[in-house]
Amino acid sequence: MSTLYGAIEAGGTKFVCMIAGGPENIRAEVRFPTTTPAETIGKAIHFFKQQAEILGEPIKALGVACFGPVDLAPDSATYGYITSTPKLLWRNTDVVGPLQNALQIPVAFDTDVNVAALGEGAWGAAQGLTDFIYLTIGTGIGGGVISGGKPIHGLVHEEVGHMLLPRDKQQDPFSGGCPYHGDCFEGLASGPAMEKRWGVPAYTLPAEHPAWELEATYIAAAMHNLICITSPQRIILGGGVMQQMQLFPMIHSKTIQMLGGYVQSPAILEKIESYIIPPGLGTRSGGLGAIAIARQIG
Amino acid sequence: MSTLYGAIEAGGTKFVCMIAGGPENIRAEVRFPTTTPAETIGKAIHFFKQQAEILGEPIKALGVACFGPVDLAPDSATYGYITSTPKLLWRNTDVVGPLQNALQIPVAFDTDVNVAALGEGAWGAAQGLTDFIYLTIGTGIGGGVISGGKPIHGLVHEEVGHMLLPRDKQQDPFSGGCPYHGDCFEGLASGPAMEKRWGVPAYTLPAEHPAWELEATYIAAAMHNLICITSPQRIILGGGVMQQMQLFPMIHSKTIQMLGGYVQSPAILEKIESYIIPPGLGTRSGGLGAIAIARQIG
Repeated sequence: MSTLYGAIEAGGTKFVCMIAGGPENIRAEVRFPTTTPAETIGKAIHFFKQQAEILGEPIKALGVACFGPVDLAPDSATYGYITSTPKLLWRNTDVVGPLQNALQIPVAFDTDVNVAALGEGAWGAAQGLTDFIYLTIGTGIGGGVISGGKPIHGLVHEEVGHMLLPRDKQQDPFSGGCPYHGDCFEGLASGPAMEKRWGVPAYTLPAEHPAWELEATYIAAAMHNLICITSPQRIILGGGVMQQMQLFPMIHSKTIQMLGGYVQSPAILEKIESYIIPPGLGTRSGGLGAIAIARQIG
Repeated sequence: MSTLYGAIEAGGTKFVCMIAGGPENIRAEVRFPTTTPAETIGKAIHFFKQQAEILGEPIKALGVACFGPVDLAPDSATYGYITSTPKLLWRNTDVVGPLQNALQIPVAFDTDVNVAALGEGAWGAAQGLTDFIYLTIGTGIGGGVISGGKPIHGLVHEEVGHMLLPRDKQQDPFSGGCPYHGDCFEGLASGPAMEKRWGVPAYTLPAEHPAWELEATYIAAAMHNLICITSPQRIILGGGVMQQMQLFPMIHSKTIQMLGGYVQSPAILEKIESYIIPPGLGTRSGGLGAIAIARQIG
């Protein structure tokens, strides 16, 4: 019996396809740019068919970690579609349907960040936990919120990056970069927002630049809100901006300070360094998460 | 076989005890002030024992909707306790233990707001939904977040009232009334915060007073954050402040405006009047919610 699963990390700029049993058993991996839906999904299908032949083993199921917004309602006519994305070519695009038709295997589907969170839960920094958050802070800001072992779906899905935060306009007069909300979390703290505010790419700012202290302040306010609203057992911070490891200690002390001793948990009050942490799977949270959700259905 | 269940709404100022099968079958109800734990819990025990005798029917299980913070971790040594409350007499008080010992029936236990949310899910304004929020805005602000049919527990439990919100200090220079966070949601928008800001009890302010517009702005920002972070299918707003029905249309239009069309759901864009609504059970969400959680275990 095959123990191999397929994974697609479907991003706005690139697709990553993988065949694996788990993190210790990655058998094939490919990445290619996101172009038209037909071409890009076609390439993914071709990869899985060809590789299954080469490996001489069928793939039991496929997991898809998809950029959004997506339709996750199982009873919806457009389940498995990308819906109102600003990427016009991909608006109202069926992702699950063509994959299922071509590969004839079960397909699990969720948002990129929900899947990355599940990957961290299966093999990364959230193993054994039932309630946790994976947040990516990079080109955009997005978060997967896991409650009772499952991603929150509800009406649509989480859009954690677009929460509103307190801010001091005298300290930071930047009007924000989100086309929808101006100065929401993503509008204030994504990589492009930092670049717009400081006039240079964020990664070129030295570690002692005040940009990082301000960035940590906004991230800590988001931590405060996520803790108050969803009470996670742990928060994992990934994405390009979080490669700046000097952010972590600042986020830790600012989060403690903002919470003001209100949430009386040793995990926060005494062990914040292991409460807000980097991903355990590096840049593979999404891909391995897709393997994890494929395993659940295959 | 008995179909009666017991309910306790354990509040910081009063206890409400009830025996019922459901909303159509409330057999006995009593309320008394919250004094010492021994006296107050003793009165509750006495009520259930005496009433079961009078009704000639045993109570199958008891549900408790408790003020907090509380310990909800099933494997914790202090499960079923009130923990770090500012009400000193009740700090580190075992609530479930004495009830279980005296009544010898299963006891279900959760926060007041989680239980109220479950009550609205069972018989009120959230029937048939799996993901929704019950928020009470009154003396304090608290919220129960239901995901996949269950309250979010995680590390501790939600403290939705203490989220941080954007604010314009020029428009509203009030420094906020929360002893922990100053101008968090509760610090800006609870009944006492309104009274502190305007110098008179909130309920004495006429419907056209600018206080309500400002109040609706803060509540709408909280709606925005709850929608982005937990994607609920519906949000129920109860509590004393929400008795001011003029707030609802203002909250509706401001929430739509703040979201800026980002969350593409007809439930929000077309039917916001049935998306953010008052409780279906009036002031009985908590008591009937306690009956609902007792039924799950009895």
